[in-house]
Parts: sequence; C-alpha cells; structure tokens
Amino acid sequence: MNQIPVAVLGATGSVGQRFMSLLDNHPWFKVVALAASDRSVGQKYSSAARWVLNEPMPEYARDMVVVPATTEAVPAKIVFSALHNDIAKDLEPQFAQAGMAVCSNASSYRRAEDVPLLLPEVNAEHIQLVKIQRQQRGWSGCILTNPNCTSTGLTVALKALDDAFGVKKVFAVSMQALSGAGYPGVPSLDIMDNVIPNIKGEEEKVEWEPRKMLGKWKDGSVETADIQFSVHTNRVAVTDGHTVCASVGFANPADPESAEAVLRAYAAPASARDLPSSPRPAIEVRSEADRPQPRLDRLTGKGMTTVVGRVRSDPIFDIKFVVLSHNTIRGAAGGSIYNAELLVQEGLL
Amino acid sequence: MNQIPVAVLGATGSVGQRFMSLLDNHPWFKVVALAASDRSVGQKYSSAARWVLNEPMPEYARDMVVVPATTEAVPAKIVFSALHNDIAKDLEPQFAQAGMAVCSNASSYRRAEDVPLLLPEVNAEHIQLVKIQRQQRGWSGCILTNPNCTSTGLTVALKALDDAFGVKKVFAVSMQALSGAGYPGVPSLDIMDNVIPNIKGEEEKVEWEPRKMLGKWKDGSVETADIQFSVHTNRVAVTDGHTVCASVGFANPADPESAEAVLRAYAAPASARDLPSSPRPAIEVRSEADRPQPRLDRLTGKGMTTVVGRVRSDPIFDIKFVVLSHNTIRGAAGGSIYNAELLVQEGLL
Amino acid sequence: MNQIPVAVLGATGSVGQRFMSLLDNHPWFKVVALAASDRSVGQKYSSAARWVLNEPMPEYARDMVVVPATTEAVPAKIVFSALHNDIAKDLEPQFAQAGMAVCSNASSYRRAEDVPLLLPEVNAEHIQLVKIQRQQRGWSGCILTNPNCTSTGLTVALKALDDAFGVKKVFAVSMQALSGAGYPGVPSLDIMDNVIPNIKGEEEKVEWEPRKMLGKWKDGSVETADIQFSVHTNRVAVTDGHTVCASVGFANPADPESAEAVLRAYAAPASARDLPSSPRPAIEVRSEADRPQPRLDRLTGKGMTTVVGRVRSDPIFDIKFVVLSHNTIRGAAGGSIYNAELLVQEGLL
Amino acid sequence: MNQIPVAVLGATGSVGQRFMSLLDNHPWFKVVALAASDRSVGQKYSSAARWVLNEPMPEYARDMVVVPATTEAVPAKIVFSALHNDIAKDLEPQFAQAGMAVCSNASSYRRAEDVPLLLPEVNAEHIQLVKIQRQQRGWSGCILTNPNCTSTGLTVALKALDDAFGVKKVFAVSMQALSGAGYPGVPSLDIMDNVIPNIKGEEEKVEWEPRKMLGKWKDGSVETADIQFSVHTNRVAVTDGHTVCASVGFANPADPESAEAVLRAYAAPASARDLPSSPRPAIEVRSEADRPQPRLDRLTGKGMTTVVGRVRSDPIFDIKFVVLSHNTIRGAAGGSIYNAELLVQEGLL
Repeated sequence: MNQIPVAVLGATGSVGQRFMSLLDNHPWFKVVALAASDRSVGQKYSSAARWVLNEPMPEYARDMVVVPATTEAVPAKIVFSALHNDIAKDLEPQFAQAGMAVCSNASSYRRAEDVPLLLPEVNAEHIQLVKIQRQQRGWSGCILTNPNCTSTGLTVALKALDDAFGVKKVFAVSMQALSGAGYPGVPSLDIMDNVIPNIKGEEEKVEWEPRKMLGKWKDGSVETADIQFSVHTNRVAVTDGHTVCASVGFANPADPESAEAVLRAYAAPASARDLPSSPRPAIEVRSEADRPQPRLDRLTGKGMTTVVGRVRSDPIFDIKFVVLSHNTIRGAAGGSIYNAELLVQEGLL
Repeated sequence: MNQIPVAVLGATGSVGQRFMSLLDNHPWFKVVALAASDRSVGQKYSSAARWVLNEPMPEYARDMVVVPATTEAVPAKIVFSALHNDIAKDLEPQFAQAGMAVCSNASSYRRAEDVPLLLPEVNAEHIQLVKIQRQQRGWSGCILTNPNCTSTGLTVALKALDDAFGVKKVFAVSMQALSGAGYPGVPSLDIMDNVIPNIKGEEEKVEWEPRKMLGKWKDGSVETADIQFSVHTNRVAVTDGHTVCASVGFANPADPESAEAVLRAYAAPASARDLPSSPRPAIEVRSEADRPQPRLDRLTGKGMTTVVGRVRSDPIFDIKFVVLSHNTIRGAAGGSIYNAELLVQEGLL
Repeated sequence: MNQIPVAVLGATGSVGQRFMSLLDNHPWFKVVALAASDRSVGQKYSSAARWVLNEPMPEYARDMVVVPATTEAVPAKIVFSALHNDIAKDLEPQFAQAGMAVCSNASSYRRAEDVPLLLPEVNAEHIQLVKIQRQQRGWSGCILTNPNCTSTGLTVALKALDDAFGVKKVFAVSMQALSGAGYPGVPSLDIMDNVIPNIKGEEEKVEWEPRKMLGKWKDGSVETADIQFSVHTNRVAVTDGHTVCASVGFANPADPESAEAVLRAYAAPASARDLPSSPRPAIEVRSEADRPQPRLDRLTGKGMTTVVGRVRSDPIFDIKFVVLSHNTIRGAAGGSIYNAELLVQEGLL
Repeated sequence: MNQIPVAVLGATGSVGQRFMSLLDNHPWFKVVALAASDRSVGQKYSSAARWVLNEPMPEYARDMVVVPATTEAVPAKIVFSALHNDIAKDLEPQFAQAGMAVCSNASSYRRAEDVPLLLPEVNAEHIQLVKIQRQQRGWSGCILTNPNCTSTGLTVALKALDDAFGVKKVFAVSMQALSGAGYPGVPSLDIMDNVIPNIKGEEEKVEWEPRKMLGKWKDGSVETADIQFSVHTNRVAVTDGHTVCASVGFANPADPESAEAVLRAYAAPASARDLPSSPRPAIEVRSEADRPQPRLDRLTGKGMTTVVGRVRSDPIFDIKFVVLSHNTIRGAAGGSIYNAELLVQEGLL
C-alpha cells in the first residue's frame, strides 16, 4: 500500500535491467521512474532497452517512459544507480543533495571515508557512516555503495572465516561472467573458445574493497582491515555467476573441517537477517567434489546466497576453497536493493 | 631415408590423434604401427578413430590398420604411449623389456625414481636416468615420461625464474581446456555456460611434478626441489590450451622487469635446443595487458612454445603472471616426441 | 488433499529430472515413487541423480529412495515415462496392463494406431483413442504419448495455420539444444565452436509425427493428414530450446499479416485450455526482427508456450517463420504432464 | 622478384586481417600499403589492429604503417577492399578511376550490371564484364566483387548440380559464424547459449546473388538465372565457417547417388583451376552421417574448398544436403584474392 517510491538510473543497461526485474513486486519499493541516457529518453522502456535477461521483462516496466537522469525528473525517495562510474561521480551527489538515498552499484564513491561500502550480511553496522556523511556533506539524502561483483562473494566467505580465525592473507583468482561487463560488453569473438586473463581495474578493487568491508567500526569511522590480498582476474564464457578460487592464511590456524563448520553456521547480523532481499542462507556450503558451478548454483537463495565448496587444506596457507556469487544479483542490483532495505529498517531513510 | 620406426599406442584417442598428426612428415620418425583397444583392432584408422582435431587426419594414417597393443604386433624402436594410466602401468614395462623406448604421456611411472620426468628445455640432463633405469630393471628399452599438461607450461616458466632467483613458493590456478579430458570427455551440458572447479587428481600432480623436474641431478639421481606449491584446477569452455595464473615467491626477491627479462632470455639446454620439436622460442613473453589467451596464442611456436604474459608485482609473494601452454601439443603428444628426439640425440636409443 | 499418486520412470536422466522439477507442488499430482535403472535402486534421489537443471533439485525429491521400474514397486495411478525407447517398449505395456496410465515421452508407441500422439492444445480429441486402445488390448490402464521435441513447437504453429489456410507443404530446419540428447549426451569437444548437422532418426520423426497430430479424428480413428514435410535437423551449442526455421505452403494462399493474426489468435480446444499445465498463451508471436531466441524466449509461459516470430512471405511457398519451443518442458516432461491432466479432466483415468 | 604491388583497404578489421594473413608469402602479390580509418592512420599495424585470428599476425605486417584510404597514399596495382559498404560505395570507384583493380568484398557493386560477381570456380568467364565496365565507365582500373559469404558455398554446390540437372528451386537455411559479423560484431551475451534467427539484409543477398553467378554469359552481359530461392539466415556460436542446409528441385530429376557423383566430379573452369588460391578440390563430398561440421571441415583445401555432405532424397524437391564454406577465407578475403589471380591470368590487369 504505502510503498516507498524508487527510481532506477541507467535502467536500460544490463545491471539496470536486473534492477527492474528484481523490483517487480517488491514488498516495500515501487518503481516510479526510470532514467537513462538521452537517446532513450521519451521512449517506452520496452523499446529503449535491449533486454538480455533470461526471464521476460516485467509487465509493469514495459510501458514506463524513460526520463532523463535529473533530480527534477525523478520523484523518488531512493534511487538505484547503475550508472557508469564517470557519470555516477557527477550525478549521484546531486541526488543525495536533493534528499534522495542513492544506492549505487558504481565504484566512484566506494573509497570515500564517509560512504558505506556495504554488504549487509557482513558489515551492517557500517551503515552508520551515513550519519557522518550527512553531517560532513550537508546532505539530506545519502550515498550507499555495494562492492565490485567479484569482491562480493569473496568478502562474505572471508567474513565468516575472519570472525573465527582472523584472516591475514588471501590469494584469489576469479573466473568472471560476461554479464559483469555490461552490454554490449565482451565481443563474442573475444571469448568463444577462449579465456581473457585480465579485467581492467578489477584486481585493484578486489585487493582493496574487502579490507574496507572487513574493517572495524570504531569511533564513527571504519578502520581498514590489515589483510594482504593478491588477486588475478579472468573473463570466461559464462553468462552469469563469478567463480573465485581462494587460498587463505589465518592468524589462528584452522583445519578444513572447522572452517567449513564456521562457513555453514554463518548468519548475517540481526538487523540484516530478515529483510526482503536477505540471502537465505547467507552462505551455502556444498559438499560435492566439483561444486559450486555457475550454471547450477548461481540461483541459490534467489541469487543472493554466497555458495562455497571444496574447503580443503592449503599447502602454503591454511585453507583453500571455491566461492560463487551471482554477479548481477548479489554482486550488483540485488546488493543495492538489500542495502536500501537495511537503510529503511535502520530508520535512516 | 633411414627413419626410425615408431608406433603409437592408444592411437584412436584425442592424444593419440595428436601423435598421428605431429608425426606426419617427421624428419626422423616413421610410424610403422598404431595400436588401440580390441574393438578397433583390424579396422582402418580412418574408420576406427573419431577424429576431433581441427586439421584433417594425415593421409599416411588413413589406411593403416589398427593392431593390438602387444610387443609382437608392434615392430618399432620407439613407442609413443597415449594409454590410460591403468593400462599403461601393465603394458609399458613389457615394451621396455622387449627393447623399445617408451615415451609415455601416462602418469603411471612419473614418480618412479629411475624414470625421467622430462621437459627437454627444462631438465634435459635428467634423461641420464635412463642408464640407471636399464641397470636396475635389466631392460634394453626404457620408459621416459612427460608431465601432466598443466605442470608443463608452469614448469617451463618456473625454470627460467628458478635459475635466476630461486623459486620457493608457488600459487597456481588453472583454467584447463576440454581436450585435456580426452574424448568423449566432458559432457557439453556440464561445461556450456559453466566452469567446473575441480579436475580429479590434477592438483596433486601439479603440486608435485614440477618439484621433480626442477630438482638437481646429482650422483645419478634427482633431488626433488624444495618448493611449496598450492594449486587449484578448473575446467573451462576452451577446446585447446591450458591457462594458469601464478604467484611466485623467490629466495632472492626480484622485480617484474628483471623477471620478464629472465623469461624472455631463457633458452633450452644446448642438447635440447635444435631438435625437430624444440620450441622456438622456448618462452614467448607478451606485453599486451590481456595476453596470453588460449585461442590466440596456443599455436605459438607450432604449439610447443610456453607463452607468458602480465608479469607484475605480487602483493604477497614477489611476482605474478599468466602462463599458457597447448595441452595436447607441448603438454602431451608434442612433449613425448620431443623427449624421444632428445633420447636419440643423446645416443640412448 | 486428494492428490493422484504418480510415479516417474527413468527419474535420474535429464528428462526425468525435468519431470521431478515440474511435479513439485503440482495441484493434482503427488509423486509417490521414482524408478530408475538397477545401479540407482536403493539410493536416495539426491545421490542417484547427477542434477543438470538450472533450478535446484526440489526438496521433496532429495530423500526419496529410487525403486526398480516394476509394477510392484510403483504404487501409482499415473506413471510418467522418461525411459529409453527400447526399454519403454517392453515396460510401458506392463504398467498399462496393471491399470496405470502411462504418459510417455518415449517414441516406442507413437505410431501405434490406437495410441494417442498428443499435444492437448492441438488435438485434444485424439485422447478418445484411449477407449479403443483399452478395448483392443484389454488394458485397464493405457499409454499416451507426446511427440518428439522438435515436432512439438512446429506442430502447434502448423495447427493454427492449418485450421485457417490448409497446410500442404512444409520445409523445416531445426537448431536443437543439447538437453535434447540427454546426459551425458553430446561430448563438449563435438559441439564447442561447432554445429552437428544431423541427429540420428530425428528427421524421420519430424517428417511423420505432425501428420498424425494434424490428422482428423473420424469414426474412432485418426486419419493421417496429407501434408508433405522436408526436414533437416541440427545440433547447436544451446542448453535448452529448439529453434526451427519453417517455410509453409497452403491450400488457400495467405499473406504474412493474416498468418500472423491467425497465430496470435490461436487458442487450445476448450478441454485443454484451463489445465494446470496449459500454455498461457498457446502461441506467442514476437514482432522483433530477431526473435524468438532460445536463451531469451524459451521460458515464455513457464516453458509451455510456443513462440513464433519473423512471419514473412516465402518466395517459393506462402509464408516463412521461426518457431521456438522449450524441448524438455513443452517438448518432453511438461508435455507428458499436460497429457495426463487432459486424461484426468476427460474422466479417462 | 617481379611481384605485383597490392594494398588492403580496411586492413584492421576481421576480413582485413584475413587478407593480411593470406597475402603472407603470396607468390604473385606483395603488400605495399595497408589503409584503414583515420584513427589508425600513422600507427604500426601491430598497434592499430586488434588481431582476432587463430594464427599469429604475419611478420611482414607488424611494422607497416597504416595509411589513409586514398588513391595518393596507396601505390598499388590491385587493392583488396574490406571496407564497409557505405564507404566502399564512394571510395572504390576512385581507385578504379585511378587505374587500380579493386577486388572487393563489399556488397555495394555486386548488383551493378557491368561488375562481375565472381567465384572463379563457378563463373570465371564473367570476368569479361571488366571490358564492358571499362568502356562504359571510362576507367583504366576496374571493380570485381565476390559474393556474400553465405552465397559462396551454396553457389559452388549449386553450380555443379545446375550443370547436370538444371536447378529450379532452392530452400536454404544458414547457421553462420561470428566472424561474418566482423569485430567487435556480435556481443557475447547475444550468442552464448543462443541462436539469433536473423542477419540483417542477408536473406535478400542469398536469394539474389546466386542467380547472377549462375547466369549465362551472353552477348557481353550476364543473363540472371531463372531459379527461385527461399532463404532463412541464422547466427550461431561458431567462430568460423558457415553451414547451410539446402533442399533443391531440378528441371531434370536426379537421385542422391548421381547428385553426389556430380558434386565429387566437379572441377573449376580451366582458367580458374591452377591459380595460387584455387581450391583443391573445388568441392569435397563427405560420406559420414554427420559432416560437414564447421570446426572439423572449414580448413579443407586451406579454407578454399566447399564441403558438401548428407546428400539425400528430399521429400518435396529432389535432393537435400549440407554445405560448408569458410566465411572469411573462401567467403571473403580468399575469394577476393582468387578473383585477383584470375584477373592477372586473363591479362586484364
């Protein structure tokens, strides 16, 4: 009935489409506007967007008319941003200034000290940074960010392990899905029968972002965690779902059985546990020898659950494992929506 | 004119086919027999083999009749073995006993102390083990092995670095091609839009085999190298070419520039440098940000060259890089043939 | 409450898995037994089946224990058969004899004159053949069949056109999904970067089956339709969804607009319109220039709808178009369930 | 020694790359210039081109500097055009006017009555049109075109059948490779696990071009052949090699055996038989039940041979078969080079 009006910025791209799909029948939020670049403005969404998701475009969206990404054109309380980073950098503060909560998938403000980089099942309390942000910037709205899609699943798994054993060192190698590059994104001739062993700017993000999210909340700021990361990122011929192989060294050494038990038992902080988009469960541990696999496991928990498998001893560090996360659901649009839900629940909207 | 008669055991499988293809017009070797399992015996090769290579079946092979894999049926001096490990274990010693040099792609004897595990551009001198083997086993023939296809490229790159800086620790994550699993091998429904994050038995091999090959030859035996390996193996949707992401720690720290220089400058030992199958060059270093890639680089040096790229600093160890090797050429059939050439050159046939 | 007890024969294969998934929470049917080959008998389903579907194995199925495919072991009123044709040929009559309704996906009895070959939205009245079948064979049960997965979508589209214009000649070329070949099915090395331009036995089926389904029900038997078919079948690298390009000649020539109108307006016969698995709509016509596409359109109407696009003039016949159907839902398991629903609705169980 | 100087226009694209690769070590031609769009001009080819072919960039090309596509900048006798159609339309006449022979892969002039649309093994005598063209247009140079890549293989097969039986009607459905769309071309998200059932403008080309090529040369002009075509075109997940399923009706009915014999026996006209790029053989007929396949057969005859298989009876027309042709070799760059060779051989340069 009394749904909160929300908008999607960058609604025609691949992450934008995922927002539109996940917001269909959302219990709290109602999409009142969708914005995209000039060449789409004025068109119906069904004409403007070249739909790339497996599930059909939701009915509610088909006839909505694309508006420009300006604060005047967007009468929402929350805006979900699937904007490119350079555009996000300019536009998102305008929306925050105008009193809207910007839940952003862009990387532009992830490193800002007063902007939460948030995975509610990991660091829900970091949302308190919003208060500092409002004070410092004089905004009535705010900016919340979710991390890079590859940081996401890795950080959820590390959080469970960090709580129990103290994570010190992490080697991680990703095999990332095509949807992570947007649309048109990766040319088919580049990836058919191939692997691309680099994703520009990605390794730096995955080597840094988890440190902020695993950092302690102390005296109104986040103290970056003292963990060393070495990351290699790769693109593979998968539509959705990022797979990461990780080797982890602990402060307090642990065997695979206890690590697996800790992962299985992990629950989100209380405030983040029963939101509409809360992953159920937060982490699923598979016991088969060859799981998780993106095609089979990416939709676990409606694409919000982090799936871990092959937890075993590491000959150099302590344990090694495989972690899978749906990159456009948990790792992008679903993550932003989950963040917005936490904001509402905490009375910070 | 005076070509050495050779045979291929397991000639109908995917590695067997690669042997047949690479031995077409070989300057030293002439295929006089090809052996396969009972259900193929008596058939022409063109009927018995379901050909899977991109290049057509060589003309010389089409009408050859498949014989059983027995010493009586195979009048060769060298036999190339593409047999399954369990069959190889029984059969290969019979051929060695009968005076033939078995150049094997199977894993059955790789760990035997008197059997060379050989990459000529890395450890050519280990071929001297053949003399010990003959003494100990009373064979007039011998068994030579080449390593697992994923160990191959990684070990070549590590050798160059070990000579210069002393390799101490290695993290390696593979993205392996489908042809490595033979034929029919991986079902298409398992790998389309997917990654399989495990290859049975593979991680153990890649964590051990390089230690033997990088070991010192001393007093008639090989002293296993003191290097720690942590390996993750994955199957991806690529036809040929194994890609490995590696992070390496040295005894004598080095920067990326010097590491790259050492890799570029690497040359095989003199005895292994000018054989028909010698890789030219041994290692190629790519300077692009996103190479090597399997589809584009696997045929470098006719598929015998190890291709390295993205040599850069590692935040935990010293350097990280990507290495690519053609798994059924350098990593299997081509490797066995190169080994056989070294055996002939060293007068050990 | 009063659900009808059903069983799945061949429950571990890829079509069997689809049956298990589609029967989860079915309003009329309750799975009371699942049968598979001897090596699975006695195991829990979660151990016996190598699950290949995108959606997870339904909870109800995980702990069910696999029983042998015998009438004694299967206490059901309806059995869904995903058996191989040669096994189906022997076993299905035993279940019919024992009083069960066999809804079969196998081809063994499709051509039998007293066995309905059924697509309820096309030829619901053919189900009356069950009465003849029972008389002639002395069975209290019966056998119902659904057509080959490639015949399915093509026949639905042809039915709409036949009613309006009288179909006389059909050229059809399929591009079929991997799941149509079962599991392990097509080796990945056969289909990566490739097309296989033949599917054994398939062209004969698609050239004949639509003629039975489009045949008139007259005096207690089906009069095969007088339509000429020329069919080419191909396997392509798609997981699910068969695409067919068709050119059709009519008795009463028609233009693309009227053909498209007829396809859009098509509705199933009344008895087949409101069953739990009825496709909604029966046919969807896409107006984009490049649809239907398997990845984007196969789940239309929960995978039960036939999707048609590119309806245009044919330079030789009358019109040409593209038709897409989900091969393991509408074209296999979903089709058998829809048939069973019609049987119940008609009071023939 | 006395090689003819040639240039490639549009050298950085995917067809342009194929030209560069095929002209490496050409016995008659020497590349003296390569032209591309403004943003590449002045760069070394190795920097300007994002190489997409499996085989490495030829050495001779790496350091050549890209020039603008103007007659002044290109000191060649023959120019190979891989330009986009709209650019080709303006530029190609300028080169012809300036005395150069333009061998074009663009479609701009294929339908011009005085421009040969040429497949030397099919209609070598049509090259005589060049004389008419020069008279009418007052050019000292000329324009020669090769057909669309899907028309190519189909027309070669039809030519053999037409000579023997008189082709009257043709149904053809293509499954086309990604390289046909150039680079970046088809986005990976559009084709992974998918088929795109339309290629813009392609069906019209394939329904018309073969009629010109199979037309009779009479009184200085080409009389378009009286054959009806109905064509469906599709894009599939294959890197190289277009597969076409065809059903053909003849004036003089023939059985599959005689059709297959005619295809096997087909030879190019004498003037086109022994050129450097002549396909050897012109047509290869495979007898396996599931060939030709793009991955396995596209490189037959160095990619210049048309491969036919599955020749069988057609229930509506006379015979049906599958035909495969390498789209960027025989169907594009290789075809233009073959045309140029014929021009030289006929003394028309």
